[in-house]
Amino acid sequence: MTGVASSARLVRSQGVTAPAGFRAAGIAAGIKGSGALDLALVFNEGPDYAAAGVFTRNQVKAAPVLWSQQVLSTGRLRAVILNSGGANACTGPGGFHDTHATAEAVAAALSEWGTETGAIEVAVCSTGLIGDRLPMDKVLAGVREVVHEMAGGLAGGENAARAIMTTDTVPKQVALHHPRNWTVGAMAKGAGMVAPSLATMLGVLTTDAVADATALDHALRRASALTFDRLDIDGSCSTNDTVLLLSSGASGITPDQADLDDAVLRVCDDLCAQLQADAEGVTKRIRITVTGAPRDDDAVAVARVIARDSLVKTALFGSDPNWGRVLAAVGMAPVRIDPNRITVSFNGSAVCVDGVGVPGARQVDLSGTDIDITVELGLGDGRGAVRTTDLSYAYVRENSAYSS
Amino acid sequence: MTGVASSARLVRSQGVTAPAGFRAAGIAAGIKGSGALDLALVFNEGPDYAAAGVFTRNQVKAAPVLWSQQVLSTGRLRAVILNSGGANACTGPGGFHDTHATAEAVAAALSEWGTETGAIEVAVCSTGLIGDRLPMDKVLAGVREVVHEMAGGLAGGENAARAIMTTDTVPKQVALHHPRNWTVGAMAKGAGMVAPSLATMLGVLTTDAVADATALDHALRRASALTFDRLDIDGSCSTNDTVLLLSSGASGITPDQADLDDAVLRVCDDLCAQLQADAEGVTKRIRITVTGAPRDDDAVAVARVIARDSLVKTALFGSDPNWGRVLAAVGMAPVRIDPNRITVSFNGSAVCVDGVGVPGARQVDLSGTDIDITVELGLGDGRGAVRTTDLSYAYVRENSAYSS
Repeated sequence: MTGVASSARLVRSQGVTAPAGFRAAGIAAGIKGSGALDLALVFNEGPDYAAAGVFTRNQVKAAPVLWSQQVLSTGRLRAVILNSGGANACTGPGGFHDTHATAEAVAAALSEWGTETGAIEVAVCSTGLIGDRLPMDKVLAGVREVVHEMAGGLAGGENAARAIMTTDTVPKQVALHHPRNWTVGAMAKGAGMVAPSLATMLGVLTTDAVADATALDHALRRASALTFDRLDIDGSCSTNDTVLLLSSGASGITPDQADLDDAVLRVCDDLCAQLQADAEGVTKRIRITVTGAPRDDDAVAVARVIARDSLVKTALFGSDPNWGRVLAAVGMAPVRIDPNRITVSFNGSAVCVDGVGVPGARQVDLSGTDIDITVELGLGDGRGAVRTTDLSYAYVRENSAYSS
Repeated sequence: MTGVASSARLVRSQGVTAPAGFRAAGIAAGIKGSGALDLALVFNEGPDYAAAGVFTRNQVKAAPVLWSQQVLSTGRLRAVILNSGGANACTGPGGFHDTHATAEAVAAALSEWGTETGAIEVAVCSTGLIGDRLPMDKVLAGVREVVHEMAGGLAGGENAARAIMTTDTVPKQVALHHPRNWTVGAMAKGAGMVAPSLATMLGVLTTDAVADATALDHALRRASALTFDRLDIDGSCSTNDTVLLLSSGASGITPDQADLDDAVLRVCDDLCAQLQADAEGVTKRIRITVTGAPRDDDAVAVARVIARDSLVKTALFGSDPNWGRVLAAVGMAPVRIDPNRITVSFNGSAVCVDGVGVPGARQVDLSGTDIDITVELGLGDGRGAVRTTDLSYAYVRENSAYSS
């Protein structure tokens, strides 16, 4: 990443409660049959309540996405309630009513605790199996408990990060401490169904910087386009993708837009790396960089076609430098290319120059965990990169053995 | 299929030599390291030599595709030489020279045998690993041998079908005997890298009907669009796709265009079913039918997005009626849909009506080999179907364990 103050520190042991003015909690409300943590709350104590959000581009949107898009139109949020154990997607008007009732319950519990809050100030996020109604008795009892839990202390950030996990094996959180004494914190979940349009995930970012909704929106959209939108695990895009950014203004510091943009970008980039490393069935972390495209968008489009190709992904699972499959994928990209100008490198070793294989290409060692694929198209100055993973036995097992 | 004379017989024990006027042979030329059959010849004895072809839409085209597209511009072919054991793709000008030399060698051997033939009358097809040059000493020696072999008898159709196999486990051939005493024969290969644009395959169809190149072209393009273009095994499209249709006119019968179209369609449809049943790692044969789309093209586009979704395919491998993944895939299709009008059925049982799950949806039995998914969009009269397969451990194994 360029343009980020080099002295800003990234700390993965901290998350959404790292910035001043935020509390969080995560509890087991019984939504998951396993008894694991499944309900999280992130609460903004102010003095500001500015917020922005980005959402799935899937035309089939879960009830909590429809709700949260609506409440975000005010540019203001006091709290985010998140559950795992059920996506509340494809649940019809009843499912939307459940989301609304959840937001009302959060507002009532927070008001009771002393912070006058309306449902319109509460975003809702859900993740889990599509198609089932949530067990609302457990959700509503859980809401009262999680507000009570949050009231008790400041250490709830990691519990919140744990409570949104589905097939994730580790919680994902990070905080960036800016040398000018403001902080961005974040948590995210997402392991499968990760693709264009926000990488199919839930994420909450918090900051104590002073920033209005417009500034937050700019920073979040730019960062998402460069990070989550360029993580493609399996080409599938969920109905529930949501990333929110809340500011409390509690630091009293107003960073300029470029500093805010860079901090948010760096936090999102780190979350992306964590999501990639914990993707379902992952054995390889793959970065595909395309250069020499007519435009940057074209480069990303070509990289995405490669990242989604099952034959490329299975070859890399087998540590097989089968560059022909990369060429075949490039040839199907929705971008006019010249096959005789394509040069491909695996981990820095050229395997194909001007569309023709080079001696020794089949001997390139891809046995390590990290694989860099670079494709030069020889057409212009456009460039872009996409992160992906391999297609392994474990991916098939995780996604066939049970409903998720 | 509608409109096909119901008395026309399909026979899978016969292939390209079923129609009068065709000979074929398949030999082991040593191109494959395994010693298996790897070189096939299909020869048209006339009296007509009309031909048509359809080719991959991949921008990265193998040398034999570039060659065969050029020779097909004459609408005339005497012979097709096909090799497995190497795709001759991404091999540069040297690879194109190899293809040309192969066609010249076939023409010379046929001329020597008594049929004056030019290289311009010989199509070339190759399949196998992308990126390596062919062992031309073996190919050229093999050409002489396969012409000699063909000269010896008429029973070479099945050997030819075997010689084009790569990861195929069984040869694919079929013949249709029309009650008016003309015949269409065919062979094909293709098991992985099967996707839009001809289903990534090689195929040769022969007929003894009297039909000029224009009639053949019409029949082949229409049939391909409805069959091979709607078989999507893994979303990957090869550099070598080629399907050719040759007529000898030896029956002396001139069918009308509709009869020819229907016969070719029926043969292509049967080859498609054979390709699907032998796809890499297949444990389920899946047909996805979309109805109620604005236009037929939209229906096919939606069906294709579902067919390519890794999460849908892994769920079906696990016999899991996870209809939410189907909805999530539909929502990403490049077609404007209304989520509240989508109805999904698995094997005839409704699992989701108007975008909401129905009771018992999770109990639908998908343990059988054949799975029918129907998606009604409720928007118009457009309909279309795509065949696909599941995503299994075996698919991952076949495509990661060795270069192919």
